[in-house]
Amino acid sequence: MSNEKITNNSVEQNQIKPYKKDAGYSYTLGAFPTYELIKTRPDKVLKILVDTSFTDRDNLRKLCEEKHIPLEFNNKLIAKISDKENCYVAGIFEKYDCKLNADRPHIVLVNPSNMGNLGTILRTAVGFGIYDIAIILPGADIYNPKTVRSSMGALFRLNFHHYENYDDYRREFNQHEVFTFMLNGENPLTLQDCPKGKLFSLVFGNEATGLDDSYLLVGTSIYIPQSPDVDSLNLTIAVGIGAYIFMNQK
Amino acid sequence: MSNEKITNNSVEQNQIKPYKKDAGYSYTLGAFPTYELIKTRPDKVLKILVDTSFTDRDNLRKLCEEKHIPLEFNNKLIAKISDKENCYVAGIFEKYDCKLNADRPHIVLVNPSNMGNLGTILRTAVGFGIYDIAIILPGADIYNPKTVRSSMGALFRLNFHHYENYDDYRREFNQHEVFTFMLNGENPLTLQDCPKGKLFSLVFGNEATGLDDSYLLVGTSIYIPQSPDVDSLNLTIAVGIGAYIFMNQK
Repeated sequence: MSNEKITNNSVEQNQIKPYKKDAGYSYTLGAFPTYELIKTRPDKVLKILVDTSFTDRDNLRKLCEEKHIPLEFNNKLIAKISDKENCYVAGIFEKYDCKLNADRPHIVLVNPSNMGNLGTILRTAVGFGIYDIAIILPGADIYNPKTVRSSMGALFRLNFHHYENYDDYRREFNQHEVFTFMLNGENPLTLQDCPKGKLFSLVFGNEATGLDDSYLLVGTSIYIPQSPDVDSLNLTIAVGIGAYIFMNQK
Repeated sequence: MSNEKITNNSVEQNQIKPYKKDAGYSYTLGAFPTYELIKTRPDKVLKILVDTSFTDRDNLRKLCEEKHIPLEFNNKLIAKISDKENCYVAGIFEKYDCKLNADRPHIVLVNPSNMGNLGTILRTAVGFGIYDIAIILPGADIYNPKTVRSSMGALFRLNFHHYENYDDYRREFNQHEVFTFMLNGENPLTLQDCPKGKLFSLVFGNEATGLDDSYLLVGTSIYIPQSPDVDSLNLTIAVGIGAYIFMNQK
């Protein structure tokens, strides 16, 4: 049987629409995240869509055949689900749940609001070896194609889980040493004095509001020293520096 | 004379248009960058525009009076120059040139292409105490309101200068120790072994292409250790980590 037919009724062409948050599936838009999806979560792929002008289509077809993933040339459908020009490949994948590892460091994002930031944070976390991400709701949609795209597909490399509140997260993982990043934190993040534990949770707040003062009490509160000439660091920068410093401690 | 009249003929209302790269002036859109503009570059402000529904208008009027800056209530004009909703304050400022300090550390951006990234980098640089930025052309427009907005007004706190090529920059500042950040750099950036000089240039390439191999030869090439599970770090994250580590060395 050819792998170029639609094989999953739930994504019949006439049902496929621009992304919706309450849909059971989402999209990778563009070659890079689509290849990442196929390589790392082949069991979640419902179908790969290819524009007839895509130059790497022979390699892609071969990869899909190896993984038993249906592939369809459909310029119209790609245009329909992507609002970007120059999108020649897209993947349709089932949303899925993950479980965080209890014996690995975590990043905990409390109410992240921007999908681009969230994707960049996922990419950065994986870059520095943190593969377990807790999100405290409400938060930006991790499955939205914008998040997926800005993660450069790193979403598929890691485990993420959503919690209704911080206490639910903490009850599940009570062995992690907790560090909360706050503008009014009590301890500077320094290159020399970084805590040496290997099992930690790095907790970051919302882009606009940060963490509220209750987070001063849930662990060791940390601030990243910065000039009074700026209001605050960008969230993604703060997470990048925190992750880099904690993961490179000796 | 009231400060609420138009006083500068070059920005007469009928000439004010959505931002153009070749115009002699640009805009701050939103309260935060506009206050930064007024506080740090009052001599460059041509006029402040205020929407009649802006809640902090009494404070803003007072500040403008102190600085002898004309202020105008003009809802229509704000809507015309900003494509965002919820923009209640805007500043019109003259573009200006700066000279970099010879005795301070620099960040050198080679062909930065994204205005949002450029603004975030400016904000981060100021946050970590680097106030001198060289841009090697071609590069994203530093005056574009998008750059200004994503810098949160940090643009006005620092010195920037454009160069046609890296050699022109280097001829002007030949005492700086040069560090080039490259995926194929020869030295890992580590917390323990960071170079100890205080007069340095941190050089970063374009978002998509990085620095070409010729930059292996212009100084000490550095890579930020990262997992093979990601293609590369986001440029703003790389700059943030580089700036933080170099500025916090002991």
